Amino acid sequence: MRVFNFSAGPATLPEAVLRQVREEWLDWRGIGSSIIEVSHRGRDFMAVRDEAEARLRRLLAIPEEYAVLFLQGGATLQFAAVVMNLLRGRSADYVVTGAWSQKAYREAMRVAPFVGGRVRLAASTEESGFTRLPLPTELNLDPQAAYVHVCTNETIHGVEWLSLEPLYESGVPIVADMSSHLLSRPIEVHRFGLIYAGAQKNIGPAGLTVVIVRRDLLSDPWPGTPAVMQYGLQEANQSMLNTPSTFAIYVAGLVFAWLEELGGVSAIEQVNIRKAHKLYAALDRLPLFENRVDREARSRMNVPFRLRDERLNERFLAESEEAGLKYLKGHKMVGGMRASLYNALPEEAVDALVAFLHDFAGRYGG
Amino acid sequence: MRVFNFSAGPATLPEAVLRQVREEWLDWRGIGSSIIEVSHRGRDFMAVRDEAEARLRRLLAIPEEYAVLFLQGGATLQFAAVVMNLLRGRSADYVVTGAWSQKAYREAMRVAPFVGGRVRLAASTEESGFTRLPLPTELNLDPQAAYVHVCTNETIHGVEWLSLEPLYESGVPIVADMSSHLLSRPIEVHRFGLIYAGAQKNIGPAGLTVVIVRRDLLSDPWPGTPAVMQYGLQEANQSMLNTPSTFAIYVAGLVFAWLEELGGVSAIEQVNIRKAHKLYAALDRLPLFENRVDREARSRMNVPFRLRDERLNERFLAESEEAGLKYLKGHKMVGGMRASLYNALPEEAVDALVAFLHDFAGRYGG
Repeated sequence: MRVFNFSAGPATLPEAVLRQVREEWLDWRGIGSSIIEVSHRGRDFMAVRDEAEARLRRLLAIPEEYAVLFLQGGATLQFAAVVMNLLRGRSADYVVTGAWSQKAYREAMRVAPFVGGRVRLAASTEESGFTRLPLPTELNLDPQAAYVHVCTNETIHGVEWLSLEPLYESGVPIVADMSSHLLSRPIEVHRFGLIYAGAQKNIGPAGLTVVIVRRDLLSDPWPGTPAVMQYGLQEANQSMLNTPSTFAIYVAGLVFAWLEELGGVSAIEQVNIRKAHKLYAALDRLPLFENRVDREARSRMNVPFRLRDERLNERFLAESEEAGLKYLKGHKMVGGMRASLYNALPEEAVDALVAFLHDFAGRYGG
Repeated sequence: MRVFNFSAGPATLPEAVLRQVREEWLDWRGIGSSIIEVSHRGRDFMAVRDEAEARLRRLLAIPEEYAVLFLQGGATLQFAAVVMNLLRGRSADYVVTGAWSQKAYREAMRVAPFVGGRVRLAASTEESGFTRLPLPTELNLDPQAAYVHVCTNETIHGVEWLSLEPLYESGVPIVADMSSHLLSRPIEVHRFGLIYAGAQKNIGPAGLTVVIVRRDLLSDPWPGTPAVMQYGLQEANQSMLNTPSTFAIYVAGLVFAWLEELGGVSAIEQVNIRKAHKLYAALDRLPLFENRVDREARSRMNVPFRLRDERLNERFLAESEEAGLKYLKGHKMVGGMRASLYNALPEEAVDALVAFLHDFAGRYGG
């Protein structure tokens, strides 16, 4: 029996995708092996890889002047890779809006002096406890920067940039960590210099990192950059400078196909808006719960919330798990609860959670 | 119908392991999700990770003073990581015996000047076409070196160090790329400073890199090393500085369990010796084929061979595939054929290949 899985990542996958994987697990399309048992450079896997890229390009309308890379190492390796590939002795701006952009900023600060160049804090909302986005007037952007880095959805703090207009106006290449909301809604790829995302939210299994990068940014990395981390080298080798995570690319391709059949990111966005609205409405209505994020910055994907009486936390977790609503415990950095509402989480899961919140509130005082 | 899969990697996996994965794919041990859909930091996956490490430690008798890391990025990222973590302004020796140790050497040469330190070529067998190992007298080892790097099994050239005595005598930490033969036979871990291996041969699916490193080598990396690549930081975080490839760790754990049930690496070594002997004996007996590697350096895992009449190559590949013997085409760097005989390849596959070689030779002239 499948439960409703609110994990922030690795996260629930579409059941239809898991069933297809199971179906073709021992003998993929009659080749007599699993697709994870064959060479990444062979005809069969290359077709899988190429189809995954083509589907992702269609889903996000990625222009031809952007390369699509399927890498390893997670977003955290990208924190350093971005610096090594793009800084080039210049200065880069970082906008800090939560735990993940702060990690990216700190890694850049640490690595930049060694590869040459500087890192600036262009804005931070830490004083608010990361419950809001910076006002356009608070963005202290350097028009000469090599790039400006932003995390467009903060998985831990539940803050999402629903409009990126203030950043578009900067005129410098935007580097965006979109790990936890890529594919949840349409984006304007041509507005970005580089987009990266760990796969284990809306894309597929952990162990894959998607990088979408404007080709003019591919050349001229810091010459000490490890080969595997050089975007240009990976692009020239179709992301196969060495053996990639073939399983994760294969499953991601199936997730992309599933999403295309559902109508693509515009269609899923409507579902995601509805799911998020239902949950935030319940949290706002029931005095037992609270979400502290500014309404216009609330993430559709990751909804952290608290019980005002924290003594009820253990009971809430035990009873929700009993009701088949799993992995609602919040990240240790912020405590409380968190519901992640990724594409693959069925709307019925949110309905069940909302019903549970009402039920729980009814039993424990409003 | 499963075929006999001689792929060099990603390679065939034990069918029993694939069946177990399929069995628990939608609902792992009653949790209501796949094990790849839950947090890497949660109780369930941590137990999977811990059990995988414990089994690997038992299989290879890894002493407590060695850390075991489950990383991403493949052996190729380790080529740079070794330099960044261990060089520390000193000099390192590289022994080049084939394509993979040459890649490691070239990456080290490229990266070393930027992180500080030097790289020396301690020996190369390139003049032989990488068909032999260096004689002990050809090893020009620096007793002051930070480490000496060796690839103990060359996947492309089919050269294996069956005895490492000449290296043990160097007295400096040995760093060994064991990607394509780790777990195929017992090793003396305490003789090494660091062992690394891409998983996609004898360990599990692609997307996982195992690093076994003596704890005294963990501290003091080059300070610009990306966080994900710092051994000490990964060790302090149980290889979970960020989200690891949970699927690959899970499957590797099942492979380790399968190997323990078979009797461990000593037991599988006997099978591997038998498998390799059968194939080399046929290649030596039949004038149609040849393997050019020195007998005492022939790999048990990767057997490159040629048809003396290369005009028969296409016919050989077509007919062997027809006979259910797949992925025998050699690496483009050396041409010809290659049969990889990893742990998970059943002995019957080798018997079938040997029978096919005899049959083919009978039909095409000796």
